[in-house]
Amino acid sequence: MNIRLNCDMGESFGIWKMGYDEQIMPYIDMANLACGFHASDALTMNKSVALAKKYNVTLGAHPAYQDLVGFGRRSIRCSLEEIKSIILYQLGALNAFCKAHGTGISYVKPHGALYNDMMKDENIFKAILSAISSFDKNIKLMILSSPKNESYKHTAMFYGINLLYEVFADRNYNDDGTLVSRIRDDAVIQDELEVAQRISTLKEKGYILSVNNNRLFLEVDSLCVHGDNEKALDFIKLLRKALI
Amino acid sequence: MNIRLNCDMGESFGIWKMGYDEQIMPYIDMANLACGFHASDALTMNKSVALAKKYNVTLGAHPAYQDLVGFGRRSIRCSLEEIKSIILYQLGALNAFCKAHGTGISYVKPHGALYNDMMKDENIFKAILSAISSFDKNIKLMILSSPKNESYKHTAMFYGINLLYEVFADRNYNDDGTLVSRIRDDAVIQDELEVAQRISTLKEKGYILSVNNNRLFLEVDSLCVHGDNEKALDFIKLLRKALI
Amino acid sequence: MNIRLNCDMGESFGIWKMGYDEQIMPYIDMANLACGFHASDALTMNKSVALAKKYNVTLGAHPAYQDLVGFGRRSIRCSLEEIKSIILYQLGALNAFCKAHGTGISYVKPHGALYNDMMKDENIFKAILSAISSFDKNIKLMILSSPKNESYKHTAMFYGINLLYEVFADRNYNDDGTLVSRIRDDAVIQDELEVAQRISTLKEKGYILSVNNNRLFLEVDSLCVHGDNEKALDFIKLLRKALI
Amino acid sequence: MNIRLNCDMGESFGIWKMGYDEQIMPYIDMANLACGFHASDALTMNKSVALAKKYNVTLGAHPAYQDLVGFGRRSIRCSLEEIKSIILYQLGALNAFCKAHGTGISYVKPHGALYNDMMKDENIFKAILSAISSFDKNIKLMILSSPKNESYKHTAMFYGINLLYEVFADRNYNDDGTLVSRIRDDAVIQDELEVAQRISTLKEKGYILSVNNNRLFLEVDSLCVHGDNEKALDFIKLLRKALI
Repeated sequence: MNIRLNCDMGESFGIWKMGYDEQIMPYIDMANLACGFHASDALTMNKSVALAKKYNVTLGAHPAYQDLVGFGRRSIRCSLEEIKSIILYQLGALNAFCKAHGTGISYVKPHGALYNDMMKDENIFKAILSAISSFDKNIKLMILSSPKNESYKHTAMFYGINLLYEVFADRNYNDDGTLVSRIRDDAVIQDELEVAQRISTLKEKGYILSVNNNRLFLEVDSLCVHGDNEKALDFIKLLRKALI
Repeated sequence: MNIRLNCDMGESFGIWKMGYDEQIMPYIDMANLACGFHASDALTMNKSVALAKKYNVTLGAHPAYQDLVGFGRRSIRCSLEEIKSIILYQLGALNAFCKAHGTGISYVKPHGALYNDMMKDENIFKAILSAISSFDKNIKLMILSSPKNESYKHTAMFYGINLLYEVFADRNYNDDGTLVSRIRDDAVIQDELEVAQRISTLKEKGYILSVNNNRLFLEVDSLCVHGDNEKALDFIKLLRKALI
Repeated sequence: MNIRLNCDMGESFGIWKMGYDEQIMPYIDMANLACGFHASDALTMNKSVALAKKYNVTLGAHPAYQDLVGFGRRSIRCSLEEIKSIILYQLGALNAFCKAHGTGISYVKPHGALYNDMMKDENIFKAILSAISSFDKNIKLMILSSPKNESYKHTAMFYGINLLYEVFADRNYNDDGTLVSRIRDDAVIQDELEVAQRISTLKEKGYILSVNNNRLFLEVDSLCVHGDNEKALDFIKLLRKALI
Repeated sequence: MNIRLNCDMGESFGIWKMGYDEQIMPYIDMANLACGFHASDALTMNKSVALAKKYNVTLGAHPAYQDLVGFGRRSIRCSLEEIKSIILYQLGALNAFCKAHGTGISYVKPHGALYNDMMKDENIFKAILSAISSFDKNIKLMILSSPKNESYKHTAMFYGINLLYEVFADRNYNDDGTLVSRIRDDAVIQDELEVAQRISTLKEKGYILSVNNNRLFLEVDSLCVHGDNEKALDFIKLLRKALI
């Protein structure tokens, strides 16, 4: 099993900087690039694609609800036609920079509230699949790995789209495979060595321990890591070792 | 000489409607579609591409400065990198809807202040050419036809881009091929029959009369017409007759 | 009982026009002016305040979620601090134009999704009250009149804010005083004479008939009318007669 | 002569942070607060006003062209009516937060490109004066101090507005009182002790040395300092000593 690291990148906006993109890009496998709706702008996207290409990092689109001031973290009640259209718009915009740099989009990972809504609402999941499918069937969709993967895969196949399953390295899971809510104290695992241990177990034995200490077997194509804090780089290096 | 009619289309935004797109689309040859920076939005772009395709109208991108409240009519002092990036962003976004509908972008016609700045500033012209060239060399760039066409063509060839020359059907021209400024009373020719007569002469003899009654020989691939007023449809039909 | 007509005004944005403001302003009593978040812009607000003042129309702020492309009709899950802040921002912006024209804001009527959310979620209602209260306790808050008015009034008193109760002239009501959902065919009463009759009854006897023909007694300070269609002016004149 | 320190504050936007506002606020006298057009948002403005009030810092509005992605640094060719309106809008928005916190706006300092355009174009200067004057004649306007102060003052008096003159502590000046262009290497004085020395001389003798070593006598109400880099706080403390 080859587990790759994905990280949100290119989330600066105008003069405002976010994330240690230049330091972290060499150590990740897949870059989820913002497309101007929750973060980034035309100039930033151009630079971000160039940076990812320089380090041979696989490019993913990271589309979101149209909400810069809320960073795409607030759910906006859109129609399904609107969701399909904003996905197409953002996919296309990123694709232009990819073409200009001689590369392409490999996958889509929706951002923030749109990601959560996709996992909870089958119609939103389908609207996103439909958008990708009409643009390029070779582009995959990344979703949260859970015991329900087969059901999502079944739907995705109908649209001719392949899925990628991601696991959150530093989050605790409930027994049903959902993430422990961020309002709980144990939502995030702070101890980095414990995280590395969990990831080793996931890689070797295919499961992680739920918050109730039950074995949760999860398919995993990629681990989601973060690049927006000072300790991020060290943590990513630690995870890479755990994945060898 | 085959002269085609181009018209700005898809310039609604959200709930706000602009233009008689549905009535006019059947009577034009080329639709300049707004890309969300001065007008339009993801949902509107999707509908506009579908409408153009329904009537087999050639699709052009109509990119602009990022200025919805000013409708792209206010010049914004951008860097050349910014201009290149905003062209790529908008080209890509429109292209996604074209791909989804099984069609493609044939040409780019910059909008409003960006169009004017492109004609006045060679560096902006080059930045736009560079953007198109890096995206798809088969896409043409539409510019204002003038006695200086050869100079523009020379520059465009360097980027591998072909030009389209447009004439404004209802505008008066100075002797040097520039448009009479809109601050003058005679900027726009109000008499529709006079406009039709000018276009007939242009088609048959290759010139229009300048505001000083001198013959101005102009290459012309396309005539720019307007679709945002009630008389537009009748006028377009009149022009079509003059072009037969 | 003196029932006044309120109407959403100043909902153009940039070049895009909406509503027959100039024709309708002379016939209404209260203008709900957009503040730039769902519609309008600085220039439009300046003109709208001047127009309202010209006809001696009472000025209300019409704040919304920050969503031009969705016209404020899509609910955005904001924190209560965000809601309080966006109300203050919009109130202040409109107030500047009022000061410049020697007038002032008399009331606040939230727009679209924010209005609906305010009626459904007491915390949002309180956040709006808190914002108004901290800005100017003389400004009233307009809400949907219902059998629960006393409960809303009780809460508003805590913030020192007076309420205005509005009834929708052309909407059908359920027995509990909520509006019949727009997904039902009978949500809107199409027959204008029937609407005028309902309003006469409301004025004289204090009730309207619910969709089940039960008497629904409603306090009413103002009737909400619309100004964005061609028949609006005639309808408003009809209502004025019914209110004499 | 009492020279006060002014600093741009509250220039974060949404999730993106800018500046060391919390550390620096205690050491400045006047805070120029962004109003949402080039930076800041409703929530940030609320916090910024609270922070300024906590340290008893005089509040100024820092309005700009409407251009978040360009941080208000790109000149936008607006009509004078537009400029007047965007000033009023931003002044009002900030004023709402001031009222909510029991304080008020003391002065206006335009931001970035709008500041430069105001100094170069008398009509823009007048449009800004007109906006402030119609809102509140007690609010002052801060401009760049130069040998032409009297001319600006003469114009401002016509609108009933008082001016504040600011000097840039760390910038070199030409003989005519304009700033040395940023494209030159000596635009900014890097040596902090030299800056402190210049400020001492300005305070005691009323002049600074131009880039050609001529004495440039400048009226000065305030020194502009920066808060967006790590050395800012130390530098501000150094300046405060030089001003004792």
